[in-house]
Amino acid sequence: MIPKQQVKFINSLQYKKYRKKAQAFLIEGEKCVEELLNSDFETLILAGTTEYLSQHRERFKDYKGTTYEVTEKILQQSGSLKTNNRVLAVAKMKEEQLFTIGNEYVLAIDDLQDPGNLGTIIRIADWYGITKILASENTVNFYNPKVIHATMGSFTRVKVHYCDLSLFLDGRSSIKKYGAFLNGENVHTIKMSVPAIIVIGNEANGISSEISNLIDQRIHIPKIGCAESLNAAIATAIICDNMFRDF
Amino acid sequence: MIPKQQVKFINSLQYKKYRKKAQAFLIEGEKCVEELLNSDFETLILAGTTEYLSQHRERFKDYKGTTYEVTEKILQQSGSLKTNNRVLAVAKMKEEQLFTIGNEYVLAIDDLQDPGNLGTIIRIADWYGITKILASENTVNFYNPKVIHATMGSFTRVKVHYCDLSLFLDGRSSIKKYGAFLNGENVHTIKMSVPAIIVIGNEANGISSEISNLIDQRIHIPKIGCAESLNAAIATAIICDNMFRDF
Repeated sequence: MIPKQQVKFINSLQYKKYRKKAQAFLIEGEKCVEELLNSDFETLILAGTTEYLSQHRERFKDYKGTTYEVTEKILQQSGSLKTNNRVLAVAKMKEEQLFTIGNEYVLAIDDLQDPGNLGTIIRIADWYGITKILASENTVNFYNPKVIHATMGSFTRVKVHYCDLSLFLDGRSSIKKYGAFLNGENVHTIKMSVPAIIVIGNEANGISSEISNLIDQRIHIPKIGCAESLNAAIATAIICDNMFRDF
Repeated sequence: MIPKQQVKFINSLQYKKYRKKAQAFLIEGEKCVEELLNSDFETLILAGTTEYLSQHRERFKDYKGTTYEVTEKILQQSGSLKTNNRVLAVAKMKEEQLFTIGNEYVLAIDDLQDPGNLGTIIRIADWYGITKILASENTVNFYNPKVIHATMGSFTRVKVHYCDLSLFLDGRSSIKKYGAFLNGENVHTIKMSVPAIIVIGNEANGISSEISNLIDQRIHIPKIGCAESLNAAIATAIICDNMFRDF
């Protein structure tokens, strides 16, 4: 049995204020919890159905935190997902480390609002071996449970560093900055230099004018049909796929 | 003033049963409503804030249906979106037309569940000039308001035809069928034939075994990093971008 107070505590982690206070965050669903247990994040609480817990003893044999056997109803009451019927976990946030850019590609997110979009971008970065993302302070929070869920476990491998993005970019004059626009050089033919920072804009407004001024090279995805634009995560995926074609 | 009964009617269009009964569907947000008014769909109801209606008289000068001036609160009560603060519309569903495949690329969706994913795929198809999508009967409904919203207006240009997908594919032996898997030929190097059908699988399970048996050519997206898979809409975008590289 899980105490009511714990259900309330886990549920409170949907809100940034309570995550910050507890320095903890919520991870829902089998795939994300599996990746969490294999990562260097510290797991504090695990709550799974009887079926899940009996099927996956092997996965958490080294786990030392608290485990609760719960019903599907409790899982859904504690978490943010209406569809989670297996497991959730609470883990400790990591301390922010120094953010340096080596000979690599880094993504920069300018005010993205949708948690699903940020999570999907983290998953894309992980697919292409990009391990660092810069995010403007107004971008949706990395530890939002909907972001974590959309990463499908990639949150364990990709670091998101929040900063004053224009100040950060302005201070990195030696690193070429690319930005996705509706005009610019064709991503099919451009050969990007390394290191590079690729800036992705807000869902509705694209890249802000302040950040636009810091972009060295505008790039665009060729369009054949009629849609006015592409979703931010979709554009990121197509750019990444083109960046890594020669590998 | 909008009658309470109309608010209730509009709200009921979130459910397939009521859409079917009314042969009508719900369109929310400025971009989607703008595209609706420019399309050959018949608009039945328009409900906008005083500000929206006064700013965009030009857009609906030819519109003959009912218009309601409403508050943001009413918009959110009538619709499915918590963030819609401008306008919504109700339009008449179109009668299904005969689905034929010419010398073109067609997407086929095998049991996709998430409305945002289907809407995003419709938007991607529209970006690349693909106007026809086949969908298995268990795929989320095209007229679901969350699907419509995620298309960002592309629902007006892309037709989705629901059918027994394995029966349909089995009957089209002269058209090459490609399917996205975690193995297969590299999308960076394959040259796809036209016409072709590109099959996209379910979010969790990929392409079903029944449909897998009908695929002529497996294709895959090269991975450099560690994520186990890509989101279905993301995979669709990368495949489309590669299909159209020579245009």
